[in-house]
Amino acid sequence: MALIVQKYGGTSVGSPDRIKNVAKRVARWKAMGHDVVVVPSAMSGETNRLIALAKEIMPTPDARELDVIAATGEQVTIGLLAMAIIQEGCKAKSYTGPQVRVLTDSTHTKARILSIDDEKIRKDLAEGNVVVVAGFQGADENGNITTLGRGGSDTSAVALAAALKADECQIYTDVDGVYTTDPRIVAEARKLDTITFEEMLEMASLGSKVLQIRSVEFAGKYKVKLRVLSSFTDEGEGTLITVEEDKNMEQPVISGIAFNRDEAKLTVLGVPDRPGIAYQILGPIADANVDVDMIIQNVGHDGTTDFSFTVNRSDFAKAQGVLESVKSHIGAREIVGDNKICKVSAVGVGMRSHPGVASQMFRALAEEGINMQMISTSEIKISVVVDEKYLELAVRVLHKTFGLDQA
Amino acid sequence: MALIVQKYGGTSVGSPDRIKNVAKRVARWKAMGHDVVVVPSAMSGETNRLIALAKEIMPTPDARELDVIAATGEQVTIGLLAMAIIQEGCKAKSYTGPQVRVLTDSTHTKARILSIDDEKIRKDLAEGNVVVVAGFQGADENGNITTLGRGGSDTSAVALAAALKADECQIYTDVDGVYTTDPRIVAEARKLDTITFEEMLEMASLGSKVLQIRSVEFAGKYKVKLRVLSSFTDEGEGTLITVEEDKNMEQPVISGIAFNRDEAKLTVLGVPDRPGIAYQILGPIADANVDVDMIIQNVGHDGTTDFSFTVNRSDFAKAQGVLESVKSHIGAREIVGDNKICKVSAVGVGMRSHPGVASQMFRALAEEGINMQMISTSEIKISVVVDEKYLELAVRVLHKTFGLDQA
Repeated sequence: MALIVQKYGGTSVGSPDRIKNVAKRVARWKAMGHDVVVVPSAMSGETNRLIALAKEIMPTPDARELDVIAATGEQVTIGLLAMAIIQEGCKAKSYTGPQVRVLTDSTHTKARILSIDDEKIRKDLAEGNVVVVAGFQGADENGNITTLGRGGSDTSAVALAAALKADECQIYTDVDGVYTTDPRIVAEARKLDTITFEEMLEMASLGSKVLQIRSVEFAGKYKVKLRVLSSFTDEGEGTLITVEEDKNMEQPVISGIAFNRDEAKLTVLGVPDRPGIAYQILGPIADANVDVDMIIQNVGHDGTTDFSFTVNRSDFAKAQGVLESVKSHIGAREIVGDNKICKVSAVGVGMRSHPGVASQMFRALAEEGINMQMISTSEIKISVVVDEKYLELAVRVLHKTFGLDQA
Repeated sequence: MALIVQKYGGTSVGSPDRIKNVAKRVARWKAMGHDVVVVPSAMSGETNRLIALAKEIMPTPDARELDVIAATGEQVTIGLLAMAIIQEGCKAKSYTGPQVRVLTDSTHTKARILSIDDEKIRKDLAEGNVVVVAGFQGADENGNITTLGRGGSDTSAVALAAALKADECQIYTDVDGVYTTDPRIVAEARKLDTITFEEMLEMASLGSKVLQIRSVEFAGKYKVKLRVLSSFTDEGEGTLITVEEDKNMEQPVISGIAFNRDEAKLTVLGVPDRPGIAYQILGPIADANVDVDMIIQNVGHDGTTDFSFTVNRSDFAKAQGVLESVKSHIGAREIVGDNKICKVSAVGVGMRSHPGVASQMFRALAEEGINMQMISTSEIKISVVVDEKYLELAVRVLHKTFGLDQA
């Protein structure tokens, strides 16, 4: 008998019928003798509806009051799901985050979990209940309702699993696991049976939107066994996200090819090659609330250098405007930009022990005539920026080059 | 400077625009230097939507979980209203019932308030906030979410006013006060400036659906000054519900004419006139969950008597079936019934000190040829059952007879 925490996303609980299906699944786990804690999101569309309602009243909603409103989305789902589980013949009780209590800091709309009181849940489990806990929410030390921000239900589930020392935290979503790359681009993409937390973090931040990145960090930190599964099929074991790479197996060098279409690049040409220039460029960008992704500065010559970075494509025009306004102040020759680019990355803990992965990647791209505009590397990841028209080709070539299409 | 508790019903907060109007009104009271606590209901239609959603999952919803779901209706409104008040330039903070905390018993879906902790509210008021508290809800001693049942927001407001020793509890609704009778039936109906709690109780239970009856009892018990006002006009002082009749004024004998269309009457003819017969008849009726209103048993003759009572018209067929099934057991001769009746009542504390009110009422009805089928009296009320076709006529005649059309 194990203690399992199951998280179901908004699509999985998007209608009364889907809630009933989730209840059937929960009841099966319970019938197998397991203790089950379920963490549902709000029904799909509900959080957006509530935020739109708030904005009708106050275009930039008061954060404390927005949390009071937004938290009701999950509160409705826990009640409905608990009823559906009772209908399946199990005992069930629901709790909001504040009721549990999930203690957070006071940063409304993006609070962080500080601690979880597991007393009520343990008591209810001991009495044979399935316990349904609202994801995405908690209360600060003064009892004010807080929410964790988008995707926060994943984090709630992982934090509950950590607090309860659960045997496994299962994240049910609309895909059946983590893939070597997007199957819509590479038909041969394979579901991974396991992936390490570090790889998952790189995959997630690069656009594989299976898991909220904060929940993966949390699971890694607290050694929670995390599994991604589909809520729409009963088959398969999903993908297990492991704390360490499996030493007993021949580990593949590369675990997956991630990519991000929503990129744009900006280059400041001919800036004086002196200390502090990067801050002079990126300071105003940060002040404009634009997130920067890759940053590249090469060695200069003749006392000047070129400075490049990428931003989300929706911030391209804003970032360009900021740079133009500071151009003369920083002594730059010219600002150039391109919003028709994308980023493709090879991710794998295996590259730590296998030299030559970068050159293998660059050769494969060169053989297809794909020009790399920027290169950035970390310990377990190599990212390149290429013209967006090459995205699919680059992903397919790299997927094949690293043998990901073979089981 | 006074401390005012204002309650706004579902229609008054039924849309973002109406919520903004409520916020403007609240801000005006605040600007006059008063401390204001606001208790809104759920937006009109929202509670029904949530209950329907629950019933899609579980036809007879689990009461604990239904409360978890239903409580979100008011939770959304408090957040929206607090934002709207902030938009008006005031400081505002919202609280759910459990946050306050409003302690109730554990009778889910119709809980009773046991106590209210006023600490948070007093602190926020002292800091200059308008405090917005969700009506209709609370939490039991174990922190489970409870609701007070239909109309519970009135009770929440009165209970808060009592706990805070507020100077006045204002119930904003879609009528501008309590009338001598329904203006749709009698054009000359006048708004009452004051009415006693006792009279209001009789008016409410007889179908004047201005205030939830439990809230009136509560206000009477805790001596809360209660005022009914319209949220759609800025004029008028509404109707003040007073603890005692005003000794200084010439009190009218009758304060209002109440009526109820939804009645049906049942008569058990020729039952043995012996002790226990009333219980033998009404016991099975109660077991079938049918509420009985008026009960009449006249003196018998020849060892038998006739026993009559009225029920809500929707329970007529059910009650009839119950009586038929016990007819031979109780030794009755015949069961007769009529669901085309109505009840008309004259209400007034003045009748305590004015004899002859009943005969004045009966003569007025007789002069119009209206036959009274049943008569029932209390200390401050006389009710008669008449054919429903006479309802409007009877109400108009009595309204005029007791001089209610004159200011």
